[in-house]
Amino acid sequence: MRKLDVQAIEDIALGASLLGAGGGGDPYIGKLMALQAVKKYGEVTLIDVEEVPDDALIVPTAMMGAPTVLVEKIANGGEFKRAFEKLEKYYGKKIYATMPIEAGGVNSMIPLAVAAQMGVPIIDVDGMGRAFPELQMVTFHLQGVHSSPMAITDEKGNVAILETISNKWSEDIARAMTVAQGGSVMVSIYPMTGKQLKQCGIRNIMSYSQEIGKAIRESNKYDIPPVKQLLDKIQGFEIFKGKIVDVLRETRAGFNFGTVKLDGVEEYKGDTCEVGFQNENLIAKRGDRVLVTTPDLICITDLENITPVTTDGLKYGRRVLVIGLKCDTQWRTEKGIETVGPRYFGYDVDYIPLEERMKGVK
Amino acid sequence: MRKLDVQAIEDIALGASLLGAGGGGDPYIGKLMALQAVKKYGEVTLIDVEEVPDDALIVPTAMMGAPTVLVEKIANGGEFKRAFEKLEKYYGKKIYATMPIEAGGVNSMIPLAVAAQMGVPIIDVDGMGRAFPELQMVTFHLQGVHSSPMAITDEKGNVAILETISNKWSEDIARAMTVAQGGSVMVSIYPMTGKQLKQCGIRNIMSYSQEIGKAIRESNKYDIPPVKQLLDKIQGFEIFKGKIVDVLRETRAGFNFGTVKLDGVEEYKGDTCEVGFQNENLIAKRGDRVLVTTPDLICITDLENITPVTTDGLKYGRRVLVIGLKCDTQWRTEKGIETVGPRYFGYDVDYIPLEERMKGVK
Repeated sequence: MRKLDVQAIEDIALGASLLGAGGGGDPYIGKLMALQAVKKYGEVTLIDVEEVPDDALIVPTAMMGAPTVLVEKIANGGEFKRAFEKLEKYYGKKIYATMPIEAGGVNSMIPLAVAAQMGVPIIDVDGMGRAFPELQMVTFHLQGVHSSPMAITDEKGNVAILETISNKWSEDIARAMTVAQGGSVMVSIYPMTGKQLKQCGIRNIMSYSQEIGKAIRESNKYDIPPVKQLLDKIQGFEIFKGKIVDVLRETRAGFNFGTVKLDGVEEYKGDTCEVGFQNENLIAKRGDRVLVTTPDLICITDLENITPVTTDGLKYGRRVLVIGLKCDTQWRTEKGIETVGPRYFGYDVDYIPLEERMKGVK
Repeated sequence: MRKLDVQAIEDIALGASLLGAGGGGDPYIGKLMALQAVKKYGEVTLIDVEEVPDDALIVPTAMMGAPTVLVEKIANGGEFKRAFEKLEKYYGKKIYATMPIEAGGVNSMIPLAVAAQMGVPIIDVDGMGRAFPELQMVTFHLQGVHSSPMAITDEKGNVAILETISNKWSEDIARAMTVAQGGSVMVSIYPMTGKQLKQCGIRNIMSYSQEIGKAIRESNKYDIPPVKQLLDKIQGFEIFKGKIVDVLRETRAGFNFGTVKLDGVEEYKGDTCEVGFQNENLIAKRGDRVLVTTPDLICITDLENITPVTTDGLKYGRRVLVIGLKCDTQWRTEKGIETVGPRYFGYDVDYIPLEERMKGVK
């Protein structure tokens, strides 16, 4: 159990934004939301999964929709108050704590803002260890936890309590609502007990995000950031360095879809790289060779300062570094691959672990 | 207060289908649903608005979506049980009775099935006196009654309780859900008190539907149905007799959109007629002259037996009679026209009452 100060929050936003793998929202907006809430309501306490009583009611909170939209449509704070009231009435029980469902610039910060506002702790855990575009793409789902009753709220004041027959139906119905409600909504989802959380959460993700954020921040003290040292710290693979020469992007059905193309720079000169995304980066190829696929993480950062770049921030001419990170082992199971592997997203490629694919590369 | 027997239900389905003005669903399916429920759960009691206590909780029930879809996707009966349970829990109060929100082959029958199953009476009232395609198009809306909390349920078992900031938001969000949930859902909407109902309901609509249904049924005893006599009974205007030569139809965004074109027969030979619809018939022209627009009713029946034809049943070659009926006076107010007048539906035409437009015609 520890209090999160401003520096901690900034580091978490930065590090989570790397783990967001292109999605999870803009850390600048996320940070502002969290810091504003902390300023207004007081500091937030981060607790360990082991500190949560087995019978406690936990409600993860997140923003759902195309991150592009959130930039122009920031939450007003009433969303989660209404959602918590509804869920507490539903369960006849107080919500003990909140937590993120995914790592990401916005979605790691929203639970912080909620924790501050609602006066509950935030748990050092999430359900992805990265970000993914759909609601059923959480380790909770792999372990049979149900996404509903879930509360869907918007900045206008609309609120829905949804009870579905499957997590995919939660995704499909909530996605349609997201589009109807302007492209983004706030969701309070996967209510579960402390006991369930201990079985399926990805632990220490906030602390890990903070560590990564701190490392990126500190690497910027140097004129040339020590990339190798940073990659060693997170067991990351350098995939490519290049200049963005093409970005195809489309906001459709509540998602950002697209592809970014890179021309190599430095030791990659003459080579090309292509990354496909749906909110998050899903597949990275060098030339024709696939080097990383979901569920492993494909992270793009600015080449000069190693600041993570979300799929939204991909702009022509920007020089970037592409990094591959191993996903949590829960994703490497059969049900994990079925839920978030490349074939789910329509890529005709088998999942092969990043470290296998990288063997003999370069 | 009176019990509704099989003949009464059949007549209501038939008559309501005329008032459905092309929408409201197929009376054959509606009738089957109601009769099946009555057979299983027992007869339904129809009560007058004046018999409802002022403080009673009333919940209208309906099917939402493209009627085309319902043909292949009939309710399984669990939808309203779940919806009533949720709403009763929300209010901490028993639901006293149900009622239709619109007149129509299916939507006059669903509340009958619900009443049978839930063991509550059905009230002789609705919120349109006809059918309209969107949720805010009810006299309740004109009088400031709120559509939510509303329950949205489907045959799969998904259930949502929606609380919105406006009736148009109810429509927009529920419509998106309808599409996501397969094109049709069941809604329990506009919960209100007996007192509110007395202020804004369109009274005796079930009895009126029954009367029309009976008249149509009896007119079929004659070789040539006495159309004029029937029209006199319902103060209807004969608009056209013709053969369907073209039907443009599209199921999009949860609605059936389209246009039907007629070539005149009998005394209309050489003349043409065109009717535009969105679930319901909205505008009827003879040649270039507009003769009826929403909110007045445009009803199409089979020419031989005066059986109402829904927009779904419009088929090439069918010989039909087009009838105009005056809408309820609540629709002829400024807010009424704003809510359901021709301009709302994108027609660049002012609303002029049917009886004015028909002056000097023929």
